[in-house]
Amino acid sequence: MTHEFDLRLDALKAAYRDGQTTPRQLIAALRDKAAALNPDYHLFIHLLSLEELEPYLAVLDGHSVDSLPLYGVPFAIKDNIDLAGIPTTAGCPAFAYTPDSSATLVAQLIALGAVPLGKANLDQFATGLNGTRSPYGACPNSVHPDYPSGGSSSGSSLAVALGVASFALGTDTAGSGRVPAALNNLIGLKATKGLISTAGLVPACRTLDCITYFTATAREASQLLALTAKRDPRDEYSRSNPLWNDASAFGAPRKGFRFGVPKQLEFLGCTESPALFAASIEQLKALGGEAVEIDFAPFLEAARLLYEGPWVAERYSLAGELIEQQPDAVLPVIRAVLEKAPSVSGVETFRAQYRLQALKILCDAILSDLDCVLTPAYPRPVTLAELAAEPVKRNSDLGYYTNFMNMLDYAAVAVPAGFMANGLPWGVTLFGRAFTDQYLLGLADALQRHTSLPLSGARALQLAAPATVARNDMARVVVCGAHLDGLPLNWQLRQRGGRLVEATRSSPDYQLYALAGGPPFRPGMVRVSEGGAAIEVEVWELPSAELGSFLTGIPAPLGLGKVQLADGRWETGFICEPYGLEGAKAITNLGSWRAYLASR
Amino acid sequence: MTHEFDLRLDALKAAYRDGQTTPRQLIAALRDKAAALNPDYHLFIHLLSLEELEPYLAVLDGHSVDSLPLYGVPFAIKDNIDLAGIPTTAGCPAFAYTPDSSATLVAQLIALGAVPLGKANLDQFATGLNGTRSPYGACPNSVHPDYPSGGSSSGSSLAVALGVASFALGTDTAGSGRVPAALNNLIGLKATKGLISTAGLVPACRTLDCITYFTATAREASQLLALTAKRDPRDEYSRSNPLWNDASAFGAPRKGFRFGVPKQLEFLGCTESPALFAASIEQLKALGGEAVEIDFAPFLEAARLLYEGPWVAERYSLAGELIEQQPDAVLPVIRAVLEKAPSVSGVETFRAQYRLQALKILCDAILSDLDCVLTPAYPRPVTLAELAAEPVKRNSDLGYYTNFMNMLDYAAVAVPAGFMANGLPWGVTLFGRAFTDQYLLGLADALQRHTSLPLSGARALQLAAPATVARNDMARVVVCGAHLDGLPLNWQLRQRGGRLVEATRSSPDYQLYALAGGPPFRPGMVRVSEGGAAIEVEVWELPSAELGSFLTGIPAPLGLGKVQLADGRWETGFICEPYGLEGAKAITNLGSWRAYLASR
Repeated sequence: MTHEFDLRLDALKAAYRDGQTTPRQLIAALRDKAAALNPDYHLFIHLLSLEELEPYLAVLDGHSVDSLPLYGVPFAIKDNIDLAGIPTTAGCPAFAYTPDSSATLVAQLIALGAVPLGKANLDQFATGLNGTRSPYGACPNSVHPDYPSGGSSSGSSLAVALGVASFALGTDTAGSGRVPAALNNLIGLKATKGLISTAGLVPACRTLDCITYFTATAREASQLLALTAKRDPRDEYSRSNPLWNDASAFGAPRKGFRFGVPKQLEFLGCTESPALFAASIEQLKALGGEAVEIDFAPFLEAARLLYEGPWVAERYSLAGELIEQQPDAVLPVIRAVLEKAPSVSGVETFRAQYRLQALKILCDAILSDLDCVLTPAYPRPVTLAELAAEPVKRNSDLGYYTNFMNMLDYAAVAVPAGFMANGLPWGVTLFGRAFTDQYLLGLADALQRHTSLPLSGARALQLAAPATVARNDMARVVVCGAHLDGLPLNWQLRQRGGRLVEATRSSPDYQLYALAGGPPFRPGMVRVSEGGAAIEVEVWELPSAELGSFLTGIPAPLGLGKVQLADGRWETGFICEPYGLEGAKAITNLGSWRAYLASR
Repeated sequence: MTHEFDLRLDALKAAYRDGQTTPRQLIAALRDKAAALNPDYHLFIHLLSLEELEPYLAVLDGHSVDSLPLYGVPFAIKDNIDLAGIPTTAGCPAFAYTPDSSATLVAQLIALGAVPLGKANLDQFATGLNGTRSPYGACPNSVHPDYPSGGSSSGSSLAVALGVASFALGTDTAGSGRVPAALNNLIGLKATKGLISTAGLVPACRTLDCITYFTATAREASQLLALTAKRDPRDEYSRSNPLWNDASAFGAPRKGFRFGVPKQLEFLGCTESPALFAASIEQLKALGGEAVEIDFAPFLEAARLLYEGPWVAERYSLAGELIEQQPDAVLPVIRAVLEKAPSVSGVETFRAQYRLQALKILCDAILSDLDCVLTPAYPRPVTLAELAAEPVKRNSDLGYYTNFMNMLDYAAVAVPAGFMANGLPWGVTLFGRAFTDQYLLGLADALQRHTSLPLSGARALQLAAPATVARNDMARVVVCGAHLDGLPLNWQLRQRGGRLVEATRSSPDYQLYALAGGPPFRPGMVRVSEGGAAIEVEVWELPSAELGSFLTGIPAPLGLGKVQLADGRWETGFICEPYGLEGAKAITNLGSWRAYLASR
């Protein structure tokens, strides 16, 4: 019974290590399970045969379990992403081709030990959010048969939700990696554009496309992202991951993080979603967050630009030739969506790009004071019957909270957040500035541990809290002297977008000195084994990218190292070289630089 | 005789301070001079009347010379940039409108004390590089009457070159701020896109347009940029200036800077330009630079995209309506350039943007290992007669080295670099990564001091070298232990794009300790007043934006402060808190961490 194995990365590795199963045994069993599910769920367009699987398994024979990070991990690949030697259909048989080489990401994963099970079903040309737009069959929801799986990464979400794969690759241009995650009780990670290579992906909108991960837990998505976020010379939209967004940024949320909540919430008449969303807000508050109401209008306008504006021309760039030559080879609903694309002009395209840029400025300003934003994953689920009756309208409904994300260059994670009365999973989205992916995953992980929802694929939830604190693109600096709020050098922090997050004290291990020289007059804070005291300090946050220029401007004998705070935490902060204490005045007894200034 | 006044910023301030003239006297005299020059040079479309000038002069009455950075500084405004109450024509009478408010930049300059003299002539709709495409008259060169001023910022360049204004505002989409600078012996600063607000500018290509400065010296351009580079909420393409690119980044070039030189040089048969350019290469070498041959093909392909690709649709976005309604109101040559614009499709636009993105990756990779690139400003000058014979072809010739700059998002400065045998000025361009403007201006300043060419406007060249060292977007870090090349933590530098620039020693003021604990084993370098020695260190460069994450990863008791090198320079580098020396072993006598490792 393969579903008895917990397919999560760590659990699977333990099972292999303990000899409970082998990749050959497990993959064969999962293949059988998938084949049995396929007639009802249509999750795979192409399930690899044992012969096709053999090369991937054979490679593992030469490796020990722990020599490969993803040793024997089964995964599914959305069928718009290339796997060498297997047809890529993009959900359109007439479009199919068989690639010689795998997509960069697929090749990376295989090199790490993962085993591709098959090519998963999708809304044709990744154009849709519901999972019914495929000539290979509609994908029903993994939990409730009256609902769709969500799309366009329909089969990928089902592969994880039904316990066939540890993780799956989806794609996400307008929401295709998030909507099906939420509808199937999964994490859906749409990382910052360019972090994961899209070389070997059939493009939908090349300027917007992302490859995504479906996993049972946020922690697995964090691990996968850390393993595969890499600049790829094959992908011109690939970007380097700043080092502040590496694996160590994943952690528990800091008390006092600020999350935005849209003023303009839309549930399209759903009676259950409002309470479910309200509960999510309370859960984030319970985790130490502070809810901040935000204007959602510019986000929604950016969302509308995606399908009402010229970006459909990007989709046409791919499918246009086929539509012109064999219109019947493309589903009528897809043809309808792309209908206006050929008449989109260059002038119109540039004008829409100007408008998007203006909206991005507005949205960025809203995000600048927040750590993330919380929204529902969709206003309300739609049934298969509703979709059949109004295929375009109901599909659009699902994208209300997702369409703007890549247009505005944000990172987003869909997170399971409860169940409707009928058992259907319900989800939220956490999104934030580009390159805060690991931070968002840390929040998602905290939310999963807090809600303790049952996981998809019959896996038990056993999640330990991370020992470290989540980190985003803001760096913290402990200041104790002329940079304190209102003092002469504070502008150096404010000029860099710095904000005061905490007034506190150091651990009781420091001596404070008034250094010789000035103005500006400066203190030196020196850690000692005895004779120390707790010194009043402030913790400021400033963009990580500007911390370097702040450091560069600090003259000797001061510098930035690590300072311990009253609660035991170590944060980056001002330190002083010993030679700088020549001629300095001991003022530890005053307890703070402000007290010293007042005493003079 | 107004031309006797040195109009450079510092000299003019001194003249005002010493009572040699007053703004009222000087501006009136310059106005007379401009009016006298206009019939021959057509430099102004609208020269402000004394009544129109009065409000700007009246404001100065309430200020002392030193209370305003640009007190009484006369400047010219290209006539596609708004000045409140004065018509903006963009070189097309039928297009003219009278704005209620000034462009953000113009308002900034006026608030700083500068006085607008008039609206300068331009190639119609800023479409051209030569200066003859205006119904207000062609602009001849300031030095040689057989040649054009260059364009499209023709009148602006003449205003400075002929000694009518201290500086002038041009614009630069394809080269309009650089070509006329080089043809008239001026500095032409096309700063990084978005650093200078374009709110109140008649757009040419809104995604590419920059407002530029024409000045006699690089130092003045540096001062003006520092005063006016500011995020503007009115301009959606406005960007914040990273702090590493502030006024303090302007300085003398460091020994060993690396400048690229195109492998594919093109002089279009000119017999003098090759030698002039070779001389510029030698001059940069004499300043301590190392010439590196680079492949110029991707830059040239990006340049061709600008006029052969869809970006003409951006220009049409502005002038299209007028062309459709009153074709005769637009110059035939401009109509010809924009002819294909209405038929440009959205699909074509996106495809060209994909190609540009791919080219940018290639070009960025070439620049990643360089501090800047040196090119001629143009392959060869063209005469007025040649332009009249082949208006489009000869205009294109002038853009060979300029058209790609904004497409690829680089900063650029045109710098005077000699004279042809017939007296015509000749120039070079220094360009580099976005946000290295002040660094480039530092190089330009060094080049101007080195060549000591006579300046335009009959001003004497008296330039003192800056006391500081020029800084670009790379930060320097002095390492002395586990981060040394080949040692266990060196990857933390390389991972961030770090490169070794120098192996040297500290000043003889340091003690070296092997700290307790590890691995990784680490030294502490401690500055002392006596008993110190020179310690072997390496200087590494890494992107300034990544210095913060490097710092964040350094554990106590180490940190980054300032370390003095053997030659007396202070650079950011590793320091150690005194408490960290507990249990440490003194190894100063070994002189280096490597020697200690070898001795164990």
